[in-house]
Amino acid sequence: MSDVTSTQVQLAARPTGWPTEDTFRTVQVTYGDLEPGQVRVVNEFVSVDPYMRGRMNDAKSYVPPFALGETMTGGAVGRVVESASDDVPVGAVVQHQYGWRDVVQEDARGFQVVPEIPGAPLSLYLGIFGLTGLTAYVGLTAVAGLREGDTVFVSGAAGAVGTAVGQIARLLGASQVIGSAGSAEKVELLTGKYGYDAAFNYKDAPVRRQLREVTPDGVDVFFDNVGGDHLEAALDRMNTGGRVALCGAISQYNDTERTPGPDNLSNIVTRSLTLQGFTLPSYMDHAPRFQELMSGWFADGRIAYDETVVDGIENAPQAFLDMMRGGNVGKMVVRTNV
Amino acid sequence: MSDVTSTQVQLAARPTGWPTEDTFRTVQVTYGDLEPGQVRVVNEFVSVDPYMRGRMNDAKSYVPPFALGETMTGGAVGRVVESASDDVPVGAVVQHQYGWRDVVQEDARGFQVVPEIPGAPLSLYLGIFGLTGLTAYVGLTAVAGLREGDTVFVSGAAGAVGTAVGQIARLLGASQVIGSAGSAEKVELLTGKYGYDAAFNYKDAPVRRQLREVTPDGVDVFFDNVGGDHLEAALDRMNTGGRVALCGAISQYNDTERTPGPDNLSNIVTRSLTLQGFTLPSYMDHAPRFQELMSGWFADGRIAYDETVVDGIENAPQAFLDMMRGGNVGKMVVRTNV
Repeated sequence: MSDVTSTQVQLAARPTGWPTEDTFRTVQVTYGDLEPGQVRVVNEFVSVDPYMRGRMNDAKSYVPPFALGETMTGGAVGRVVESASDDVPVGAVVQHQYGWRDVVQEDARGFQVVPEIPGAPLSLYLGIFGLTGLTAYVGLTAVAGLREGDTVFVSGAAGAVGTAVGQIARLLGASQVIGSAGSAEKVELLTGKYGYDAAFNYKDAPVRRQLREVTPDGVDVFFDNVGGDHLEAALDRMNTGGRVALCGAISQYNDTERTPGPDNLSNIVTRSLTLQGFTLPSYMDHAPRFQELMSGWFADGRIAYDETVVDGIENAPQAFLDMMRGGNVGKMVVRTNV
Repeated sequence: MSDVTSTQVQLAARPTGWPTEDTFRTVQVTYGDLEPGQVRVVNEFVSVDPYMRGRMNDAKSYVPPFALGETMTGGAVGRVVESASDDVPVGAVVQHQYGWRDVVQEDARGFQVVPEIPGAPLSLYLGIFGLTGLTAYVGLTAVAGLREGDTVFVSGAAGAVGTAVGQIARLLGASQVIGSAGSAEKVELLTGKYGYDAAFNYKDAPVRRQLREVTPDGVDVFFDNVGGDHLEAALDRMNTGGRVALCGAISQYNDTERTPGPDNLSNIVTRSLTLQGFTLPSYMDHAPRFQELMSGWFADGRIAYDETVVDGIENAPQAFLDMMRGGNVGKMVVRTNV
């Protein structure tokens, strides 16, 4: 055993509006010998996710805010290099929530051993095999009650959750899948590789108009990652009895002023719509069924994926900001083991 | 048998904004001898309800718009005075949807025979015993999933649906019932006769501030009849996992411009809220259970009620407008048999 230096990114200040370089600081932490029950893990990938923006505020939410001056927590996947635990041996692949650091040393109970994925990178544990994929699955099934034949609209469809939603919706019987994204390249990816029936670039023209044009039969299920004008546009197009799974509102996370909501909420009453917000912690009991389904679909070659990989833990803040601005296709991850 | 003259109120023009005297016209219709299977009913009470404003527009909704130049349809209760049907005899009390007229003659299948209510007027069939009470019951149970111990907030609580919601919520186990209304007298009625734990006059100060003051423990179920600033205020106060039954938005029915929605919809995600709009036609299967419960509660003296009675079918438009402006306490009805 020996000391090891870990490079970690901490929250240095709570941002107002968009995070800046003052929001984060990179520090070196030295871990000494393992204590009994501990393991040392060298991360391969760490995750940057939209929900992290909310945790940078000092506000009550479903997860507590990040602590100032502590290392940013969040999803990560790595390999055990030293172990003082019988449950988590050296060489095991583990996923955990210790976040933005290249090496982590903690009690073994904080790590979950996972199998290697044949023919695919471990980063998928942060994407379609992980909480990202589970978010898509839970939102479509437990929240929106997806039924065979539904027309599904996904906002921010080329993002991490979005690419999973479109594919899972189709695999579970949706008749039409329609998505929005923020560039022509992403739109082409959606209608090509991801098999969307229709997609549009929300920067080209008002969402309200574009969505109307591509949803002649209305929308039964709307999976919203974006909020704002996307929610308003969808409420115009929802069919009677339609269901909206509200996963996020990335368009507003960095707003410094309150933004008025859609002008057509009365449709919720007249069309008997259900809008349900959800966050993953309440739905972890769906994980085993999801993992079973996703493993089968993946093995059958029915799952496509994209990742946007940024190298170096010290670049996690930049990766996070790029992701918030839509610079990613599929899951944005930081490769730490470079 | 003999001819009879029926005074009826028709929709003469579709209103923009608030209905005016040009919106309606009163006509005399003569009914001749009964055809086989028909009955003739002299109404005692006809109903004026907020949802009727939506039907005056030429817009697709859950019920088709009123036809121009035809008599306004809606709930009514009366007695059979002539009958050519074995199923609906002379003297029977019937409720029906033929609306704003003092006499109606139609096929017996359009009428439902109901028992007299011991010690109470037949107008209760338009109120707590009728679709109004059922709306309250369905919204609390099937839509909002009321649980024992919930704190319930009702907007427009002194109205027809509102007075029913507060009482039913309490009878079904709500721990706290809180309401808003539009006058000091109504507020006193809520905290007095109707046993609300707290109530406030929404004209006194911003709803957002007043609701915060009377909900130290937050809100689990919000039954919304008003919309607008009430929905925004409630979203601020909803507890995690809270449920909102959206029944109506009377504050906006006469708007001529679209009104932006609440500025705090992001709470729907972070607090895992469910907002569900509903209209009664989808929930009629709950009627038998509701009638059983309500009959029992009423017989036990556990149901209070108020009615605002306007005399004369020709005054139905004025009664409707008064109700839309909050001039009623409890159910607003028009007494036709004067």
